[in-house]
Amino acid sequence: MTIATQRAPRDVRGKGFADRASLDKALEWIDCHSTISDSEEIEVEGAVGRTLAHPLISPADAPPTDVAIRDGYALRSCETIGAGSYNPLPFCFQDCRAALRPFAAAPIISGTPLPQGSDAVATFDVANAGKTMVDLIGPVAQGEGISHKGQEIREGAVLIEDSRPLRASDIGLISSFGIERVRVIRRPRVRIILAGNKSDSDCKLADTNGPMLRALVVRDGGLIEICKYGVADHVEIAKWIAHPAADVVLVCGRTGTGHDDQAPLALDGAGTLSIHGIAVRPGDSTGMGSVGQVPVVLLPGAPLDCLCAYDLFAGRLIRNLSGRASRLPYRVRRTTVARKIVSSIGTAELCRVRIVAGEAVPLGVADSGSLTSVARADGFILIPATLEGYATGAPVDVYTYDEADEMTGL
Amino acid sequence: MTIATQRAPRDVRGKGFADRASLDKALEWIDCHSTISDSEEIEVEGAVGRTLAHPLISPADAPPTDVAIRDGYALRSCETIGAGSYNPLPFCFQDCRAALRPFAAAPIISGTPLPQGSDAVATFDVANAGKTMVDLIGPVAQGEGISHKGQEIREGAVLIEDSRPLRASDIGLISSFGIERVRVIRRPRVRIILAGNKSDSDCKLADTNGPMLRALVVRDGGLIEICKYGVADHVEIAKWIAHPAADVVLVCGRTGTGHDDQAPLALDGAGTLSIHGIAVRPGDSTGMGSVGQVPVVLLPGAPLDCLCAYDLFAGRLIRNLSGRASRLPYRVRRTTVARKIVSSIGTAELCRVRIVAGEAVPLGVADSGSLTSVARADGFILIPATLEGYATGAPVDVYTYDEADEMTGL
Repeated sequence: MTIATQRAPRDVRGKGFADRASLDKALEWIDCHSTISDSEEIEVEGAVGRTLAHPLISPADAPPTDVAIRDGYALRSCETIGAGSYNPLPFCFQDCRAALRPFAAAPIISGTPLPQGSDAVATFDVANAGKTMVDLIGPVAQGEGISHKGQEIREGAVLIEDSRPLRASDIGLISSFGIERVRVIRRPRVRIILAGNKSDSDCKLADTNGPMLRALVVRDGGLIEICKYGVADHVEIAKWIAHPAADVVLVCGRTGTGHDDQAPLALDGAGTLSIHGIAVRPGDSTGMGSVGQVPVVLLPGAPLDCLCAYDLFAGRLIRNLSGRASRLPYRVRRTTVARKIVSSIGTAELCRVRIVAGEAVPLGVADSGSLTSVARADGFILIPATLEGYATGAPVDVYTYDEADEMTGL
Repeated sequence: MTIATQRAPRDVRGKGFADRASLDKALEWIDCHSTISDSEEIEVEGAVGRTLAHPLISPADAPPTDVAIRDGYALRSCETIGAGSYNPLPFCFQDCRAALRPFAAAPIISGTPLPQGSDAVATFDVANAGKTMVDLIGPVAQGEGISHKGQEIREGAVLIEDSRPLRASDIGLISSFGIERVRVIRRPRVRIILAGNKSDSDCKLADTNGPMLRALVVRDGGLIEICKYGVADHVEIAKWIAHPAADVVLVCGRTGTGHDDQAPLALDGAGTLSIHGIAVRPGDSTGMGSVGQVPVVLLPGAPLDCLCAYDLFAGRLIRNLSGRASRLPYRVRRTTVARKIVSSIGTAELCRVRIVAGEAVPLGVADSGSLTSVARADGFILIPATLEGYATGAPVDVYTYDEADEMTGL
């Protein structure tokens, strides 16, 4: 893979980025470095959101025998032919645990095995019950109200594919077969290194980015291996990168063009710096590379840039390694822009928006690095590098953090 | 509220439902019984997904003082007028912690307070640095590269509204102000009662519905107060409903038309049964009512019906009480149906679908009550009671359990 071995062009400190990787190239790098390592066996009860390591095979037929799937009367369908409200046909009651006698009807509860000889379940709607007899006032077709042995699934067939995270309903389904443990993809362990010294501004960044990154990593299925504060210079950063007991390393801060921005230097020393500088804003000083087989993502220290770079790159890596979908974990809503948005050709831009009266109102492509605009936003749009922005009324996809009720029917 | 005090019409056992409440009426009942009780103070770090009890007010201006928002040189913008690549203007270096001297430029790092007297930050792109001097090769506008004191947010302004669950980025933002604890809506405590006896089929239902319901309640923001298995008859059910130390009670099973379906009877005895039988499939034997101020939802025992009734009704109640959006927690995707779907007028039907080549392929409006079709489905469509179904190619909204990558760009 040429993409894996290339090196970032040069030291950008005091100069600025001459060449920046495209968003697509950076995403390609992430996907190329998303090799899922191993699996683990866990209890079914705690497996929601985890992804199976292999397809789960059904250990038995379901249902295990022919069962009623509605409350009513088990009977022989052929004996109901001609029944109608003007031609009620009488059936004798009998116990549903005994084989069905001719012209008998066995009261049965949904989920219960059928009496031998019966081939349909009549609902109460077509039956007028007396003390010892029931009159059928409508015919019942063969197989109605019945689920046959193995009709839902056959022993040996795929019960749940390994291509998606487990849902609450899967937990129920798996448990219904008496399965107590499942083999799932192991959670990627994530090391977070907050670069910076003891200055007020560095401490404040770390106090912002630390809790945010921990919450984001957990959201995307990762486990925090360690979250190390106040890692000062390139020697210390390199030390924390060098022998990670983690599957992913995130370094936050010290990625820019200032003279103390030594994270790229540290990664270039400890391993390989493959990309530094990406044509996306916020987050353009993001870097990525690896130490041995472990991918390392360098996230900008400005909290807004950190968030955007995490979501696009680091989060994608963690989602991939967790066996989740790569895409951003936000609902996409197609709408129109309420007013013109200007952006720079050559740079993809994330523009935070509010949804007002169903339209996307831009909150500006701010470059202040603060999270306050995110707190006010309903989501963001991603303006491709090929566009100068959007005209008023242009259709756009909004990645929504959370949707207001008005957006969906139910 | 008339809706709160009405009683369900009659005992349906052995007869079937004569009148069923409409889906809208049942949802209205749920929303009328979603009174959020109280709040609690918790650590910010664990507050993702929780909803603030009150809007969070900013305790300080942000930024607290004028700061650089890019790496570069702090200077006086008026001194850069006329600078260009053919007219480089020289500036002397100085420390950014001292007041700015005339025609001086202070190297500054993003996030750092500006030196007194400066009003702009030039990027490295417009500056050629020498040993002691830097040549400006372009003018810098006043305010460029600066965030002014209070520009992001003013002390006393609303930092985060209380109308939505907290996001990972909010945790970062709140932490950046040194706030360690926040007051959030308390999680609703949910009592789960699995009705049934020691028969094989009842045990199997409980082993399916128990784990599924626990996972669903947690997903929607609830806390399990207790999950009680094998509650046999209406006396026992009534006992477990009667004095709940919970905010919501879910009774699962024994809701149908069979002779042992005593959950509605039990609720009618212990409190008020307001609705029994809803014109929705799967899940039409769902009931709801209350004991004192505590809402009780009766969920069908067939796992598919249980899931659908939970999602539509019980889950909505728990989401409301958690301060989350009422709507179903599934992404909605607008697409078209790949082939005709038939449904009954008068009953809303949930039809599980697979998404194949971007179209919704129905897996049938199965009534077997099994979860296997859910495991195979990508989501479901909700066919309103007013329709007979959909023609091939009709536009529909699919509630997707999880989306494949192809569905969104990023």
